[in-house]
Amino acid sequence: MPNISDRGTQMPSSPIRRLVPFAEEAKNKGVKVYHLNIGQPDIKTPKVAIEAMHRLDLNVVEYSHSAGIESYRKKLVKYYHNIGIHIDISQLMVTTGGSEAISLAFLSCLDMGDEVIVPEPFYANYYGFASSTGVRVIPLTSDLDSDFALPAFSEIEKLITPRTKAIFICNPNNPTGYLYTREELEQLKELVIKHNLYLLSDEVYREFCYDQAEHVSVMELEGLEEHAVMIDSVSKRYSECGLRIGMLVTRNHRIIETALKFAQARLSPPSLGQIAAEASLETPNSYFREVNAEYNARRNFLVERLNRIPGVRTPMPKGAFYTVAKLPVNDTDKFCQWILSDFDHEGETVMMAPASGFYITPGKGKQEVRIAYVLNIPDLARAIDILEKALEVYPDRR
Amino acid sequence: MPNISDRGTQMPSSPIRRLVPFAEEAKNKGVKVYHLNIGQPDIKTPKVAIEAMHRLDLNVVEYSHSAGIESYRKKLVKYYHNIGIHIDISQLMVTTGGSEAISLAFLSCLDMGDEVIVPEPFYANYYGFASSTGVRVIPLTSDLDSDFALPAFSEIEKLITPRTKAIFICNPNNPTGYLYTREELEQLKELVIKHNLYLLSDEVYREFCYDQAEHVSVMELEGLEEHAVMIDSVSKRYSECGLRIGMLVTRNHRIIETALKFAQARLSPPSLGQIAAEASLETPNSYFREVNAEYNARRNFLVERLNRIPGVRTPMPKGAFYTVAKLPVNDTDKFCQWILSDFDHEGETVMMAPASGFYITPGKGKQEVRIAYVLNIPDLARAIDILEKALEVYPDRR
Repeated sequence: MPNISDRGTQMPSSPIRRLVPFAEEAKNKGVKVYHLNIGQPDIKTPKVAIEAMHRLDLNVVEYSHSAGIESYRKKLVKYYHNIGIHIDISQLMVTTGGSEAISLAFLSCLDMGDEVIVPEPFYANYYGFASSTGVRVIPLTSDLDSDFALPAFSEIEKLITPRTKAIFICNPNNPTGYLYTREELEQLKELVIKHNLYLLSDEVYREFCYDQAEHVSVMELEGLEEHAVMIDSVSKRYSECGLRIGMLVTRNHRIIETALKFAQARLSPPSLGQIAAEASLETPNSYFREVNAEYNARRNFLVERLNRIPGVRTPMPKGAFYTVAKLPVNDTDKFCQWILSDFDHEGETVMMAPASGFYITPGKGKQEVRIAYVLNIPDLARAIDILEKALEVYPDRR
Repeated sequence: MPNISDRGTQMPSSPIRRLVPFAEEAKNKGVKVYHLNIGQPDIKTPKVAIEAMHRLDLNVVEYSHSAGIESYRKKLVKYYHNIGIHIDISQLMVTTGGSEAISLAFLSCLDMGDEVIVPEPFYANYYGFASSTGVRVIPLTSDLDSDFALPAFSEIEKLITPRTKAIFICNPNNPTGYLYTREELEQLKELVIKHNLYLLSDEVYREFCYDQAEHVSVMELEGLEEHAVMIDSVSKRYSECGLRIGMLVTRNHRIIETALKFAQARLSPPSLGQIAAEASLETPNSYFREVNAEYNARRNFLVERLNRIPGVRTPMPKGAFYTVAKLPVNDTDKFCQWILSDFDHEGETVMMAPASGFYITPGKGKQEVRIAYVLNIPDLARAIDILEKALEVYPDRR
């Protein structure tokens, strides 16, 4: 019997996915599970997107251009213009989700064995894209005690080797909710110019910034035209995760041309998703105001409530819809399993993402969990009550 | 300025894409271009698929399961059962087009630098997927003079090295239209068992077989349960190229489990496409009968007409909707450009795919073109008339 590839064998399953059977089992026992583990927003998709499907007038669902439907790309140029990112149509391509934009950026900018520095904790799937494309992820550890701010210039510089080709940030950050400041971005700019690196920035949570905090895109940094690559997606912006529509944006024409060569092999991004995403550009501003206000209220409630639990600490995230919290336990992988398999409070429990899955430095994040505030406030309140009760009785407290 | 990756720089643009500006220019001059170059069928998508979008009843377009919507996977099991492929739900996953199924098969079965033997000429995008995943394609040259039949066992065996992990066929074949016989598949079976290889088979043209010829799936070959991997897609079956919905099918559980680990990173296949594809399973049989009859008539017309042109020869393909034809010219890359840029017959010309893009052995296919019969018969007749006129006056005849 032929062997599975080594890269396949070595590809880790995420700690969240290891918990899924335990959540299923809890549900089978009749226990209600509050999901604090997922990045699937509970916010409605804009009506204009669904209506575009109701009006669908096609005889043949054809391939689109490999870079996306032209009318959609033209409207995206205007969309970016309105948020201060001035590009032309040759400087973006539509991808199959932000996921594919990351893979294409890796394929175009890095060769197999090349290194990309990523602030840790990071979105676990980055590791999957790196593994698929043969790129090595070098973690730059950030600390909960410093609210996950970017480590000092000298700390980053220590990680640079002859194989380093890029620095890759997620801003606002999944899993930490951290929003990089202009100063931090200027520092990264100085660094990538000094060492001739690419600066890749996943900005899919751009609309989710709180406290009037300013989001600074890599696309706004002057002098970084050849270095900056932005990853974008409609998944979170319009609660359209299932469309699988993202974008790769850069003023470096050689990157777009190269990414397109790889993208041509897969023919086109999904046509129906593009039609729905194009319609979504007509979403009224009130939608974003309401969504932002809702997440802001949830965040304020969640962070305040978490920090009132003895031994729990979480920073006040300025963006996205996650926070990483430190719990008074020795191993959150075990705790997150235990709370599903051995605990319930009045027939209810919670599912959280152990933070170990967001670190690749061994041993890091063992006391941390990621909590997504994608539940309404009453459910969030109940979920955190359950967490507090669980921590009171958990045997392996620290 | 940082460098583009070597793999990106080395990734070839296909010869068809090099012709696109010449076709655009012809159109700008007012010349009508008949497209014999493309794999986008002109057949209508079944109404049930479009109607599923008209009825779309979703509040949130969510991620699906990474292996696809469960109800769709269950129905696919029945669909396969009805065509004699008996699998259970754990033996398939839904992918983002057949394209992604190929990439996932490569990632799961082969490591970087490993070799896959592919009969040549082959679908040019295979090379792109191989390049993205670091796999080496070893061409097994087949000949127009033998109607592109599989070369002898001993010829294939000569190509096997310690790095060979798989043989990959496309059946029916793009670009040749060749349909592998049961004897050829039994020969491949013997070979992959003897050398402990995977047998990957792209069967997306399964419905397009003519002359009552039998399509033999790798999934039907007994004793090949751990070796056989089928690539499938709705793109051609239902003329749904833009949905980007495909399938990876194998009884080797370790492949599905491994592919799923890579697929989890990209979260899910497109949700709207899956909903439309699920609805398409209700397509009436009359649809397939009509489509098949239409392609059969086109094929008969095209092949007969091509072979009547002096110096032109093409086999009678038994499947798909392509044929590879030998033309009496020295270099079809030049001829296909010339016919667009320097020729027209009464204001009309044709675009064809030079076959050099389907070979990686240097110099192969220089006299051949791929012709797709995705035009109705009157247009096909006119296109071939134009080709004949062009060959009469082309200066670089052979």
